[in-house]
Amino acid sequence: VLSGYWSHKSITYARHEGPVRIAWDGRDGNYRCAPRAADLPAARSAAYLHWVSNETVEGVAVSELLGEGGTTRVVDMSSDLLSRPMSIAPFDLVYAHAQKNLGPAGVTVVIIHRRHLDEPHDELPPILRYRTHVEHRSNYNTPPVFAIYVTMLVLRWLRETVGGLHAMGEINRRKAARIYRVLDENADVYDAHADPAARSLMNVTFRLRSSAGTAPLIARAEQAGLVGIAGHRSLGGLRVSLYNAVTEESAEALAAFLEAEAHAARRRG
Amino acid sequence: VLSGYWSHKSITYARHEGPVRIAWDGRDGNYRCAPRAADLPAARSAAYLHWVSNETVEGVAVSELLGEGGTTRVVDMSSDLLSRPMSIAPFDLVYAHAQKNLGPAGVTVVIIHRRHLDEPHDELPPILRYRTHVEHRSNYNTPPVFAIYVTMLVLRWLRETVGGLHAMGEINRRKAARIYRVLDENADVYDAHADPAARSLMNVTFRLRSSAGTAPLIARAEQAGLVGIAGHRSLGGLRVSLYNAVTEESAEALAAFLEAEAHAARRRG
Repeated sequence: VLSGYWSHKSITYARHEGPVRIAWDGRDGNYRCAPRAADLPAARSAAYLHWVSNETVEGVAVSELLGEGGTTRVVDMSSDLLSRPMSIAPFDLVYAHAQKNLGPAGVTVVIIHRRHLDEPHDELPPILRYRTHVEHRSNYNTPPVFAIYVTMLVLRWLRETVGGLHAMGEINRRKAARIYRVLDENADVYDAHADPAARSLMNVTFRLRSSAGTAPLIARAEQAGLVGIAGHRSLGGLRVSLYNAVTEESAEALAAFLEAEAHAARRRG
Repeated sequence: VLSGYWSHKSITYARHEGPVRIAWDGRDGNYRCAPRAADLPAARSAAYLHWVSNETVEGVAVSELLGEGGTTRVVDMSSDLLSRPMSIAPFDLVYAHAQKNLGPAGVTVVIIHRRHLDEPHDELPPILRYRTHVEHRSNYNTPPVFAIYVTMLVLRWLRETVGGLHAMGEINRRKAARIYRVLDENADVYDAHADPAARSLMNVTFRLRSSAGTAPLIARAEQAGLVGIAGHRSLGGLRVSLYNAVTEESAEALAAFLEAEAHAARRRG
């Protein structure tokens, strides 16, 4: 499934290993939309169906479960795993780097259904086989102990301080809703990138309709203590990331800033 | 070069990729010795000559530069890089994980001669090509920032507090000499594993001649605050690791403990 920057990278890598069929192509829609299950052709004949559950660059999320029964589902959840309750049962393999919602860069979480552990992969060196890591309980090589330790602390915070995934999901939903509301209510100034049905809760992407105002707005935001809102270099514009560590207070501060900016833009005419 | 536990692992992995010729085999000598340059057959016809500069399990170090002129030299310096001054010039590729002398687990240092960067490796995905990482200045993927940051702090400590690699090498030489002296002066009690010409400065391996005393000695050492001296599970016996972070005071405390243990063993008869 080609839904944005990261799935494009995945496809490039997959092509290195074998032929790739693009089951859904978001390029025509300028990566504003996400596929619905009904949009996809049958994928059971494929070795697997791969998608990225949240495209951080475009701010597009795949919220439906893709693939009919019998499809092997492999999903990159790097940027939304543990951002809300989610059933892992339908997936064959889920992978996620830690550095969005889980912990520091340097550790990757892989959840694999045990039925895939017995598949032969003699062409791979042992360290590249998931079975090796399962058999050695993730201690086949010396693991990145510090990153794993901090991830444990984050998981405890998520469970004990935040109150679990349901609470986390509600917080994230409110944060994103607050920012999207500003964009929708000030659509004469802001142009939200993602189709409403495909909006990410983690990354809100938008542009100023007067694009010359982007750099000055980013500068004023920094003066107000609001940093990191420039869009990804591949897309430009603006991007607000709302990972678990971002508080509702931070999201509110940014929303208020964007509202004030919209009023000022209108006054400037 | 098969000189111990880690080079055996390297050979197992290399065999996965192609035929391996063992240029020097330390198994016959029970991994007590290290090769000298004159011991090796010509290796210029090989794609590369690989060795492990310090075998942590057996406490055996390869101190000579192996391979005649024109040999492509690839060396695993995981356990002794930055333990003393060393010229990198003769090597084509040096690699070392951080977690002995450099920093926390999770980062690996690779030093590669630029002449190897242009070799085609189309069979590898880009992330497994060194050229990719050079071109992206080690930022192709999100790097393990914390581990790299701590490594920087360790390097500063090495340069500014210790006084550089020459000073570090002298400290390490004294630490190892102190422990080996105890073993040599009490050879009726202790059996040093490595041949004197092959002794590692990083890992001193030895056995009690009365092997039944090993577990009680380890227990008494722990009571005295001296931990981590059990040998690697594959070899048993005792192993004292003297990486950069181990102080001379620590080495002295262990040496004194081992001397007292030797006296006590003699009294017990």
